[in-house]
Formats: sequence, structure tokens, C-alpha cells
Amino acid sequence: MKTAAFLGLGAMGGPMAAALARHAAETGGQVLVWNRTFEKAQAHAAEYGTQAATLEQVAQANVIFTCLPISADVDEVIGQLEKHLRPGTLWVDCTSGHPDAARVQRARLLERGVKFLDAPVSGGVNGAKAAALTVMLGGPADEVEAVRGELAFAGKVVHVGDTGAGFAVKAINNALLAVNLWAAGEGLAALAKGGVDLSAALDVINASSGRSNATENLIPARVLTRAFPPTFGLGLLAKDTGIALDVVNNVKGSAPVLAQVNALCRAATQMIGPHEDHTALLKLVEQMNGQEIK
Amino acid sequence: MKTAAFLGLGAMGGPMAAALARHAAETGGQVLVWNRTFEKAQAHAAEYGTQAATLEQVAQANVIFTCLPISADVDEVIGQLEKHLRPGTLWVDCTSGHPDAARVQRARLLERGVKFLDAPVSGGVNGAKAAALTVMLGGPADEVEAVRGELAFAGKVVHVGDTGAGFAVKAINNALLAVNLWAAGEGLAALAKGGVDLSAALDVINASSGRSNATENLIPARVLTRAFPPTFGLGLLAKDTGIALDVVNNVKGSAPVLAQVNALCRAATQMIGPHEDHTALLKLVEQMNGQEIK
Amino acid sequence: MKTAAFLGLGAMGGPMAAALARHAAETGGQVLVWNRTFEKAQAHAAEYGTQAATLEQVAQANVIFTCLPISADVDEVIGQLEKHLRPGTLWVDCTSGHPDAARVQRARLLERGVKFLDAPVSGGVNGAKAAALTVMLGGPADEVEAVRGELAFAGKVVHVGDTGAGFAVKAINNALLAVNLWAAGEGLAALAKGGVDLSAALDVINASSGRSNATENLIPARVLTRAFPPTFGLGLLAKDTGIALDVVNNVKGSAPVLAQVNALCRAATQMIGPHEDHTALLKLVEQMNGQEIK
Amino acid sequence: MKTAAFLGLGAMGGPMAAALARHAAETGGQVLVWNRTFEKAQAHAAEYGTQAATLEQVAQANVIFTCLPISADVDEVIGQLEKHLRPGTLWVDCTSGHPDAARVQRARLLERGVKFLDAPVSGGVNGAKAAALTVMLGGPADEVEAVRGELAFAGKVVHVGDTGAGFAVKAINNALLAVNLWAAGEGLAALAKGGVDLSAALDVINASSGRSNATENLIPARVLTRAFPPTFGLGLLAKDTGIALDVVNNVKGSAPVLAQVNALCRAATQMIGPHEDHTALLKLVEQMNGQEIK
Repeated sequence: MKTAAFLGLGAMGGPMAAALARHAAETGGQVLVWNRTFEKAQAHAAEYGTQAATLEQVAQANVIFTCLPISADVDEVIGQLEKHLRPGTLWVDCTSGHPDAARVQRARLLERGVKFLDAPVSGGVNGAKAAALTVMLGGPADEVEAVRGELAFAGKVVHVGDTGAGFAVKAINNALLAVNLWAAGEGLAALAKGGVDLSAALDVINASSGRSNATENLIPARVLTRAFPPTFGLGLLAKDTGIALDVVNNVKGSAPVLAQVNALCRAATQMIGPHEDHTALLKLVEQMNGQEIK
Repeated sequence: MKTAAFLGLGAMGGPMAAALARHAAETGGQVLVWNRTFEKAQAHAAEYGTQAATLEQVAQANVIFTCLPISADVDEVIGQLEKHLRPGTLWVDCTSGHPDAARVQRARLLERGVKFLDAPVSGGVNGAKAAALTVMLGGPADEVEAVRGELAFAGKVVHVGDTGAGFAVKAINNALLAVNLWAAGEGLAALAKGGVDLSAALDVINASSGRSNATENLIPARVLTRAFPPTFGLGLLAKDTGIALDVVNNVKGSAPVLAQVNALCRAATQMIGPHEDHTALLKLVEQMNGQEIK
Repeated sequence: MKTAAFLGLGAMGGPMAAALARHAAETGGQVLVWNRTFEKAQAHAAEYGTQAATLEQVAQANVIFTCLPISADVDEVIGQLEKHLRPGTLWVDCTSGHPDAARVQRARLLERGVKFLDAPVSGGVNGAKAAALTVMLGGPADEVEAVRGELAFAGKVVHVGDTGAGFAVKAINNALLAVNLWAAGEGLAALAKGGVDLSAALDVINASSGRSNATENLIPARVLTRAFPPTFGLGLLAKDTGIALDVVNNVKGSAPVLAQVNALCRAATQMIGPHEDHTALLKLVEQMNGQEIK
Repeated sequence: MKTAAFLGLGAMGGPMAAALARHAAETGGQVLVWNRTFEKAQAHAAEYGTQAATLEQVAQANVIFTCLPISADVDEVIGQLEKHLRPGTLWVDCTSGHPDAARVQRARLLERGVKFLDAPVSGGVNGAKAAALTVMLGGPADEVEAVRGELAFAGKVVHVGDTGAGFAVKAINNALLAVNLWAAGEGLAALAKGGVDLSAALDVINASSGRSNATENLIPARVLTRAFPPTFGLGLLAKDTGIALDVVNNVKGSAPVLAQVNALCRAATQMIGPHEDHTALLKLVEQMNGQEIK
């Protein structure tokens, strides 16, 4: 019987582990779940038919998934699990982690015969619940192929490159999200200040060349409504734009716009708050312009 | 019999005037066409059943359309037509013009009893050929309603605000295009330099939160292919980001990212060339990173 | 007897007119003064031996100086004086004005036979009181030479180019002030947040290659002390960086850093207040970093 | 007899070691010198009365100075010397190094009883020859005091904070140099393009609030003359602005202008060349503007 373990039952991890459980039920496997707050694991088990497990038990799984806030959290868990790990285990890290960390983590786990793949996801909470996430995998091709079938929470799986490449692509994606969102905020604030109706403006932009996920989805649903529902946090967006900048710097690249927006995300995290929804980034644009985007 | 006139038979204007001619054929109207190079008007007439006309004849139309490179060109044509204009005529300017110019042009034409609407379009040459352009209209509501039925080249018509608002929205749209394109170029150059496969990266980004028209359409079709087909020129994109910045400045707004990207578009226009396709903007990103985006 | 007139008795204009009066006393001339608030002119006359005058009287002077907040104020005064002006009069505008305005103003005054020179000053209130201002003159060389002897408030007079060049150089100077100040604020905020003593850091920087007027004078005297004495206002600095950007745009130049800092000055004007001292620009840096610069 | 050792006899290190030798001659000490290219050490010994030494000999000195291109070079030398080091030795690193590296290096050397101080210098080759460098020291106060008397190449010694603070201040200084230089380049290119005489403009700016070391010294001497004499390299400036950005990021700071200029320095390094003088940064500004700064 095949055993998967899932560590980190947050807003994304919870439904991802549930998707694994549905798959296991069909294929005769089982899913162990672990969380720093153990009650969360027990609640998950009760609701989704997974089994709450200790770190020692988790180490015996065939595939270990992690989905934690940052790479340092993964390092900590690796440290705790390390001596219990068995050769041949696959470790699939769905954290939005750091490419540099991935390389160190892979090397460290290989010493135990464990294969580490970076496998961050996109698609949000809704994508996780629908088991329709996009997974971007970094690592050797044969290991990527070996793990494909295990990713029951995925709608799309893409092998993007070697170890760390998954994290790199995820960070760049989130940096583009930040840039597209911020720039749209700048433009819309100016239009609103000049008396233009923003619904009409977005109607046009979304039928034109300037459209992006930010103008099509985020701003109409979260900003114009003033709802800013706290899903993906502003502090994590700032963290991801920082990783993107490290990706640029590691290759001695030049990315003045990503760099500027990373600094503005940092400022917004400081001034608006790290736990606000990432779209609250535009509250800083609003302050800078003395104009609500609505 | 209703007469429309179309001035400026460029890549966009040609098919737009043709759409007007098809509409006129159905409704018993006629379409006069004028171009600085008169042979172009004659060729258009021969191909699409329009009538090549002098500026004096054009002034007698019920609706006059202009679609010229910049607002200064429209000023020049107004100067030449002015004394021939009749009260009650509608002037619909489809140029990607300047909001400040629109206000001056409207006031000037109102002295002749002519109503000026700014009506820039988006959708590109293909949209023009399919008569599926998006038109963003600036001006009084009653005049906008009066002109709606005349816009045979439009798939979507949106009234975005007072005189100048159409140009403002168009400029902001194009500035967002420039930002989204440039930022995607920065991110992809770094990924490529780090050994990531860009088709795979775009596959992921286009299923994720960082997607935009630039990542979904422009970069795969024009940049990765190294084709950079010269449609909308880099010099005109730089002009439009400049207008966007004027829109921001006119309301004493703050748009650091639009401002930076405007400067980078200017640099690219200087270094890559104004007549290159606007996607050749990324050739400057490539030079800055020592890395082709492919 | 030679008559000079001085219009605009603000923090700079007051002592500048006083310097003219001291010079007139030595050379047997007289100085008329005018201010929108007439009591200010009367008080100046009482204190410095100038003569409070009406606009009509002022128009009879041999040299008319203006020192007003912005070029639009000068336009207004020109409009009021215009019909009283005599051919041969020199008009010296010490406003930190706009090069585009200068060209229009010169043309307009030349129709009356009046010669307009742009002549903005630097050196601050202390420089004005000490009659040690630097004057940057734009206009034809012969007119510049003719006016040199009249600039009793100047310690240094430099002919920088044609009409508008004075304003352009002044705007670029102030933009560099803004950039150097802002960047120093960014660096010092980070050092302070990391536990570095800022007096020691400035001691080093001011003996090194990173030094500027901002690190040598403004930050030690105004920021570290938390005094921010309101002399030159933040709103005027934002206005000047905007003029600098227009100077860049007029020549189709590319200045990404000036553009970004202009946007940040605008944001600070909005968020900190236009009437705060220009060094209060760094209060926005402090908010963005959650760290006082002290 | 007290022995100092100096490792790294480059453009700065050579005259610094010579200053140590002059001091040793007066105080009865000796100076060992080492260089990767051993002939350079022998030539230095012949010229300045130092002694060319092996790494093993160098390890016996009371004070070991390093002055190498980057922190990774220091790491390598530490690795080679490590097993020969004696407790009580002082290690003074004059490299323009990385604060993170300093903390690791100090911890590593403390295991051998060796005290590491970060001690970068400013003042350039002329300052080194005149033994008038500014030294910025990071480390515990008592160790800083102990080493003060040994810094015979210094004109000014400032204790700026704990381990790493010296490198941090140096990096921020160089980042301000880069910003002030780049921004001045942008402004001057626009003025030149508009027909303003740059010598006159600099004459004014250097008597005004926008002045900096860049406008007072670097640009007149190196850029306007088109000399760009290769002293401090563009690649090293880009490296230092990168360290400055790490200083900002380590405290989760926000520095949009430093970030942007770091990216532009990277681009210039790529496009102009890492070994060009750092003032050749402005050659990229010139390309972006299609205008020489002269």
C-alpha cells in the first residue's frame, strides 16, 4: 500500500491533502497529515479521511509533501525528520520557496537517499479545492516523471527545469502579478482622479492589449468592491518578489522594474500590513495619489 | 443620403474605412476617403467602393473620421478643413491622441458648430479587418449616443467619460501593455539565463496569476519566434506611454512604474529604433541582460 | 535716475529686493516693490527704503524683476502690466519657472519691445540675505551682458543658454537635489534599521565618494535633528522635479531615475503635505521602511 | 617586534602596504606582503622595503590585512591560512566586502582565536598613496580601539557599528555614488540635448543644492573630458550596489531608487563592460538618450 504524507495544512495545503485523500481512496493508498498545530491535522483527518501523524510516522511515507510559508520552515522540518527518513522516498515541496534553498535541500536529502523536487503550485484556494492547480516542477526529468502520477491536486503539471527552477518560475510569476497589479493601480488611480468611470475603463482595457489577470479578475472583484478578501497575503507577495529579484541577481541580470516593484511591495507591507490581502497593495497607490480606486 | 468621410488610410484606417463602406452599401450611404498620399485614397476607392475626395469635399460629410499618427496631425487637418466645415457635422477622431489636444480641438471645432468626439480604438489590424474594434469614446453622452450607430468598424463601443477621456483610457491601456511586456521580458530573461525553458515557463505563467496579454499572445507569437513583425511601432508605444504620464501629471498623480517604463520605452526607441515592432522593446531588455528571450 | 522694480516679496524676493535697494542707494537709483498683498510692499518700503508701487507705476521701471511661485503667476502679472509697458524695458524673471513658459513669455513681451530673461536663483534664504545668490540666465548673450550689472543680489552669474535654459538648469538642479536626498534617505534608513550609527555613517560618507549637498548639509541639519524647518516647500520641489521631467521629455530624452523620483516627490507631497519643508520628503522614506532617520 | 602582513597588492593595496611599511620603519616593526601573483609581492618588497612572504609566513603576523576584490576571495585565503593561524591575531579586512560574509568570517576565525574586523576604505588610489584614506570599521569597540593605531594608511578612522557595519556603510556610500552619478548623467544629457552648455550648467549646479561628488569631481574630470580613466571598475560598482541592496533586504527595507540604479549598473556592466571606469556608467545614459555628455 502506497502512503503519502502532507505537511502543512494551511489554506492551500488543506484542500491539497484532501485531494490526495480522494485519490488514495480510489487507489487503495493512505494519506498521513501533519501540522505544527496538531489539532488541525486531527480535524483534517476527521473531515477528509486522512490520518493525523507524528513527524516520525510521516518519515515512513513513500512521498512526503510539504506546503509551508517559506523555505526556512521546510529546513526546520527537514531537520526534525532527517534521521527518520528512508532511502527511496520522494520529497515534493509545494512551498513557494527559494531556488537557493532548493539546491541545498536537495543535496542534504540526497545524503539520506531521499529525492527532493521543488513543486510550487498556482491556482489559489479555489484551484486547490477543485484539484485543478498548476504545478511547476524543478528537478531531474526521471524523478519528475516518477512523481507526476502522485500529484492528485494538479490540473496541469509542467517540468520547467532543474532543481530550483520550479521555485524560480513561481517567484517570477508572482513578481509579474505584483507589477501588473501595481501598474494597473497607478493607471486607474489617475483615470479616476480625472473623472473617468473605472468600470468603463476596465471594460475597455480587458478587451484591449493592456489586459492582465490583475485587470480581468483581481481589481474588479477585490479592489473596486473594496472587499480585499484576505487570501494570499501582502507579506508573502513581498517575499516572492524578493525571491524573484534573487533569481535575477543570481544570474547577474538586470530587472529595474521588478526591482522597483519589489521595493514598493516592501513599503506596502510595512505601511498597509503583511496580513492584508495582496491586492491591498493598491491601498498604497491610493495613498500616493490621494484617490480611491473605485 | 448620409455621407461619412475617413481621413488617414493607414494600417488601421484602411480597413476601418472599408468597414464603413460595407455598412454604407447596406444603408444607402457613401464613404469619402482622403489620404495625404492621394494615390492611397484612389486605391482604396478602387478596392472598397469608397470615393477618393479632396479636403474641401470631405468637409461636406455628415460624419468625419480621422485616424492619424498623432494629435498634431489632426490639428493640421483641422486647420486645412476649418473654413469649409458646416454646423451640425460630427468629427470622430480615432487617432491615439492626447487628452489635452482633444479639449482644444473640441473647443475650436465648436466655434464652427462641429462636435468633436475622441474615439481611439483597440484591437489591432486584425480587429479592424474584422470590424471588431473596441472604441473608447470621450464626450457628452448625447453626442456619444448619436455616433454609436455610425461606428461600423466597432465590435464594442464604450463611453468612458468627457472629452479627452477616450484618449486617456487608450494611453493608460497602452502604458499597461508596455509595463506588462517589459516586466515579463525582465523575468523571462532571468529565467532563460538560469537555464529554464521559456515555453514551459510561459505555459505555467499563462495558467497562473502573472498572466497578461503580453505573456499570452505577444511574447509567444512575436518574441520567442524572433519574428517581431512590424505592426504597431515602438516609437508610437513610447509616444503613448508619454501621453499616459501626462494623464497622471495633469491630475498631480504619482505613478513611479509608468514613469520608469516610459523612460525605458524612450531609451528603446532611441537604441532599437522607432519603426521596429513594439515588442522589440524587449531587445533592450535582452541587451541589458546579455540574454536572448527565446 | 535708474529705476528697478521687484514683484514678489516672498522669503527669497524680500531680501533680493533689499539687496537691490542697497545697490540703488550707492548708485543713485530707486527700487519700486509690489506684492499681491500690498501691506507686504509697504512693510518692505519701511524697512529697506524701497517704494511700494502699483502695477502701473512698476511698468515704468527700467528693469522689472519677478520672483513668484510658478510661471502661471508670472503670466498673470504680465497680463496685468502688459498695456503699461514701455519698449526697452528689461524683464528679469527669477521665478523657478518652466522653460516652455519662458519662450511664450519672451515672445509675448517682445511684441511690446520688452526683453524677457529667465533668471532663476539658487542659494536659499541665507544666500538671498547675503546677496550671494547664484543666478542662471537664459537668453541672448547681449541682453545677458546688459543685465549682469543689475543683479545686486547675486554672488555668481552664469549664462547657461538661450531663453528657457535658465529655468531648465534650475529644474535639473532641483531634481538632482531630490534624487540625492531621497537616495541618501533610503540608504540611511536601511543602515539605521541595521543598527548603524547615522552620525558615524554620514561622517564617513561625507569624506567619501557618495557625498552630496544632501548628506553634507540637509540631512545632518534638518533630518537627524528632526527639525525639518519649513523653508523651501515639498510641493515646490515636486513641481520642480516635474519641470525637470518636462525638460527631458521635450528633447525625447530618457531619465528613468528622475522620473521615478518625481513620482515619489508627488506621493510625498500628497502624503506628507505640500507646505512641509522639502527635506520632509524623507518622512515618506521613513514610513516605507518603518524606521526613523536619526 | 611587531609584524603586519598585507594580502592583496592591487591599485589600493599596494600603496596601503607601502604606508604600513613607512610606519613600521619608524616604529621598528616589519611588513610581510603576499599576492596571488608572487612577483607582485617581490616587486613591492624591492620598492618599499616590505618582505614578500608565503601564506604560511603571513599567518604568523600580529595583524593580517586583506584587500581583495570580493568577500569570496577573502574566504579562499582564510581557508588556505586557517590551520596556520595563531590565537590573538587581528584580521583586518579592507576589501569592499559583504556584511553577511563578515559575520561568517568573524565566527569562523574566532574558532582559531583570531579577531576579524571589517575595515573597508574610501579615498581612491590618491588617498591610498597619501595615506589619507577613510576607514570604516565594523566590530566590537575594544577591538576597534586596539586596531586604530595600526591603520597607518588612514587619514580618518570611524567606528560605524558591529561586525558587517563597515561593509554596509561602504556599500551604501558606493550606491549613493552610483545614484548621484547616474541621475546627474540623466539631467546633463537632457540639458545638452536642449542646447545648454554643460560646463556652465555644472558651474551653477556645483554652487547650488543639487551638487554632489559626481557633479563636482567625477563628471568634469572624467566624463566631459571623455577620458574615463580606468580606476575603480564598473563591474565593482555594480557589485557594491548589489551589496547595498542586500543591506536593504536584510532589514526588510524599501529602497526603490537604489534598487533601480543597481539594475541599471548591472545593465551598464553588461553593455559597456565590467573593466571600464565606473564613470563609464554614463555611456549607457548616453546611449539611452542618443546624446553625448560633453
